[in-house]
Amino acid sequence: MTCHPRRLLASLAIVLATLAIPDGRAAAQAGPDLKALIDDLVAANRILYRQGVVDGFGHVSVRHPDNPNRFLLSAAKAPGRVTAEDIMEFDLDGKAIDGRDRPVYSERFIHAEVYKARADVNAVVHSHSPTVIPFSVTKVPLRPVHNTASFLAPEVPVFEMRNVAGMTNNLVTDSARGKALVEVLGDRPVALLRGHGNVVVGPDVRRTVARAIYTEVNARMLLQAVSLGGPITFIDPEENKLIEAGRGTRVIGHSVDRVWQMWLEEARVEPAR
Amino acid sequence: MTCHPRRLLASLAIVLATLAIPDGRAAAQAGPDLKALIDDLVAANRILYRQGVVDGFGHVSVRHPDNPNRFLLSAAKAPGRVTAEDIMEFDLDGKAIDGRDRPVYSERFIHAEVYKARADVNAVVHSHSPTVIPFSVTKVPLRPVHNTASFLAPEVPVFEMRNVAGMTNNLVTDSARGKALVEVLGDRPVALLRGHGNVVVGPDVRRTVARAIYTEVNARMLLQAVSLGGPITFIDPEENKLIEAGRGTRVIGHSVDRVWQMWLEEARVEPAR
Amino acid sequence: MTCHPRRLLASLAIVLATLAIPDGRAAAQAGPDLKALIDDLVAANRILYRQGVVDGFGHVSVRHPDNPNRFLLSAAKAPGRVTAEDIMEFDLDGKAIDGRDRPVYSERFIHAEVYKARADVNAVVHSHSPTVIPFSVTKVPLRPVHNTASFLAPEVPVFEMRNVAGMTNNLVTDSARGKALVEVLGDRPVALLRGHGNVVVGPDVRRTVARAIYTEVNARMLLQAVSLGGPITFIDPEENKLIEAGRGTRVIGHSVDRVWQMWLEEARVEPAR
Amino acid sequence: MTCHPRRLLASLAIVLATLAIPDGRAAAQAGPDLKALIDDLVAANRILYRQGVVDGFGHVSVRHPDNPNRFLLSAAKAPGRVTAEDIMEFDLDGKAIDGRDRPVYSERFIHAEVYKARADVNAVVHSHSPTVIPFSVTKVPLRPVHNTASFLAPEVPVFEMRNVAGMTNNLVTDSARGKALVEVLGDRPVALLRGHGNVVVGPDVRRTVARAIYTEVNARMLLQAVSLGGPITFIDPEENKLIEAGRGTRVIGHSVDRVWQMWLEEARVEPAR
Repeated sequence: MTCHPRRLLASLAIVLATLAIPDGRAAAQAGPDLKALIDDLVAANRILYRQGVVDGFGHVSVRHPDNPNRFLLSAAKAPGRVTAEDIMEFDLDGKAIDGRDRPVYSERFIHAEVYKARADVNAVVHSHSPTVIPFSVTKVPLRPVHNTASFLAPEVPVFEMRNVAGMTNNLVTDSARGKALVEVLGDRPVALLRGHGNVVVGPDVRRTVARAIYTEVNARMLLQAVSLGGPITFIDPEENKLIEAGRGTRVIGHSVDRVWQMWLEEARVEPAR
Repeated sequence: MTCHPRRLLASLAIVLATLAIPDGRAAAQAGPDLKALIDDLVAANRILYRQGVVDGFGHVSVRHPDNPNRFLLSAAKAPGRVTAEDIMEFDLDGKAIDGRDRPVYSERFIHAEVYKARADVNAVVHSHSPTVIPFSVTKVPLRPVHNTASFLAPEVPVFEMRNVAGMTNNLVTDSARGKALVEVLGDRPVALLRGHGNVVVGPDVRRTVARAIYTEVNARMLLQAVSLGGPITFIDPEENKLIEAGRGTRVIGHSVDRVWQMWLEEARVEPAR
Repeated sequence: MTCHPRRLLASLAIVLATLAIPDGRAAAQAGPDLKALIDDLVAANRILYRQGVVDGFGHVSVRHPDNPNRFLLSAAKAPGRVTAEDIMEFDLDGKAIDGRDRPVYSERFIHAEVYKARADVNAVVHSHSPTVIPFSVTKVPLRPVHNTASFLAPEVPVFEMRNVAGMTNNLVTDSARGKALVEVLGDRPVALLRGHGNVVVGPDVRRTVARAIYTEVNARMLLQAVSLGGPITFIDPEENKLIEAGRGTRVIGHSVDRVWQMWLEEARVEPAR
Repeated sequence: MTCHPRRLLASLAIVLATLAIPDGRAAAQAGPDLKALIDDLVAANRILYRQGVVDGFGHVSVRHPDNPNRFLLSAAKAPGRVTAEDIMEFDLDGKAIDGRDRPVYSERFIHAEVYKARADVNAVVHSHSPTVIPFSVTKVPLRPVHNTASFLAPEVPVFEMRNVAGMTNNLVTDSARGKALVEVLGDRPVALLRGHGNVVVGPDVRRTVARAIYTEVNARMLLQAVSLGGPITFIDPEENKLIEAGRGTRVIGHSVDRVWQMWLEEARVEPAR
């Protein structure tokens, strides 16, 4: 065993940092709803990773239940590694509240601008959902071929960065680009970003995660249908209206609740990708 | 043959352990057949999930061995999470016997109407089998290209909800829709539901699960064959007759028994999807 | 605890069977080479299952090292579940030596007829290798696009059962059908069976397993190349001659040895398919 | 901040444990940088295997930090099995320093010739990245469709062995073939080898591994885009310039660091392929 002045100082630093960590009771004073929401947000990160919608990149946020001008988003970290301690609070200009020098996602402006423009939205997912990318770089529109993706009806708009900012790094790294993306999104649940990924929005985090997953699943089914050739029958907007009506339910065992329980269990399994 | 003191002791241990095993009759006052059937039904749920035929949605049932006007189906739950305690009994109007306020699958009418119309059927699977969906929304018929899916010969009919009920939520949520689906199914083992999934039926649960799995496998092979271009050689209905003749066997090691054992073991493995 | 006459008899049977099992030394008297070969054969079964070449169906054999008119093949069982105790011996008419009523593969005639016709072959794999099936039912020949599958040059012949036996169950269930298949195989390493699978042969079990795996891998690459459209550059038979020359080596770390070690480790991992 | 007796004890424990950790200098007489680099190189092997870029074949090297005319590469072994003890040193003629009769990769000349020609390169990956193979045997160029693969802009050159050495075993098994490959690579990050695989180079091992992985991911997306038909929008070289500018950062939580941490964790999981 060696004794090193620098090492002793590092150890002392550890001790002091440990004593400085909030003991959890501070965060709980915000109320049990906030804690439950943060747990759901962490779960959402893990689920999206486990389901292959996000990999090392991508992020998911929720609007703050107590203040519509704030949202909760993890510090910059791969979604599969996010824990409750990583969740940070931001304002709608993308500025971190109590940042404490933690790294932040450079594309947090996607979330900020959606929450500004969409009062109906309380959760946002940004991902590099792999099978939607081909639809973002070709002229074939992403349209729903399965009940579970009916919310995509009639079709998904594509945001092209070059239209608003010319040649860039193709990332939504400021409010202006975020606003432009949100304009293309309009009042819809999903928009693609050319050569980049998608943004998926919804009224709560569980339904938004379901939308993100079924958008990916639907993209795969549509890709296969296109390869078969010939006319394709899409889910009609009329059908979507009636299908969506049954989705708001939080009744145990039905719709989003049924799959959320399953995805939660799958996420606790060792990730096998 | 060798005689070994240690071996004799081991054998004695086996004998004693065997005598100590609960004989199962306590749980089987409904009869050992019913308990074994429920175990198979639970296994079927887990297997179909593990094999990627069902995900959070989908369900499998068996006709009640003691009453042809009843069937067994889980309470509404993702198939991968179903246990023996979840299995409920229903009549052929889809009404739960002893429901005890447990949530029920809204599409139990698929099962009910099949059992009404098909005296030859004792098991039913409804799934969103992913690779069959493209065949349900295009004009390319799902036909068998592999021995294991010969039962699909000559081709699989597609049920279009709009033909019977106009614009709906595209779910089989009542007897009338169930009857319409069963009419399209006719005397065949599989029918597709446009933009939704399929129904697979058979004389017992193990063969029906095999049919559901091999329908999905065959869909993938046919998709690939179509992408190669040119004429395709399908399994002929004549060949199917001869292949099916060898499928009824319950002889150990053959046909359905061989794969069922393997699928059972795979389902006990931590689900890696 | 209950006491049951039938149960006691069953336990006694277990005791007697246990005492009757060869204690391993009997089998070892055939020499350490045979034991090592049986271990490799069991490993081959597990590897082919783990790599997705076989699923519940399919089998692999080796020619008996001490008698060229015999071969070793498992009793009828899913390959992923085969153990050393399952390995049986057969003559070239497909008759089991010391069968002891164990179930046997109905298609053992594939192996028997190959060993009859091909003095250069000491291992045979029959599988439903999924991605080769599309090539067996279309007019697109399976040809090598990658170094590791160079042995497929110039192209793989397809056996059509209807040409030799009209409408059948499309299984090689007797010597006559086996002979017809072997005639199509000729002196090549692989032949497809239309709508069924393939047969892969080689000078030893490790190289034959490698051939079976890389045939599947190559089929996937070729399928993708065909979907890109346009002319395809295949591995030339001249290149194959030079590549094959380097494959016979058993030098540690090279060629087949390198991948065999890796496949062995992967097969010991919990199967995640 | 709260003060808790138990917390103080835990902190003390941390201090004592920290002091007890071996300081690594014993193994690092070559310097702590070399040990850290070797650890990264071993991790790179495991990560590339876990991500499906390499299987039993393929290898990754780094230029020696203390001598630009030397590089570090594992002894011949499947990448998923490489450990720190396998790492060997080579000169730029592909000759092993202190070989000790360990088997060496026959294609080490790929690495040697890249280091000779490219002063900007400090890491090299050679793989049989499966989805790039179709692009190596057809006339469809591999071009970037996603931000993460922008470095492929404008397109990836293909090395054809027959152009330099006629019919061969299609392996880069000497300096002359290595030089010819490097000439085709030019100043680019990736080149394909027809019917064989690719070579991926970069300024450090973490970025090079990321390039190798995202080349494979991009190939899959492009394959799907091509199957959709019609014009495709590629990442423009101008966009790549701006995207690459953000990649050099080693800032915690961003870019390569974020995904490297995730890939490291995935590689420690039991390989599920």
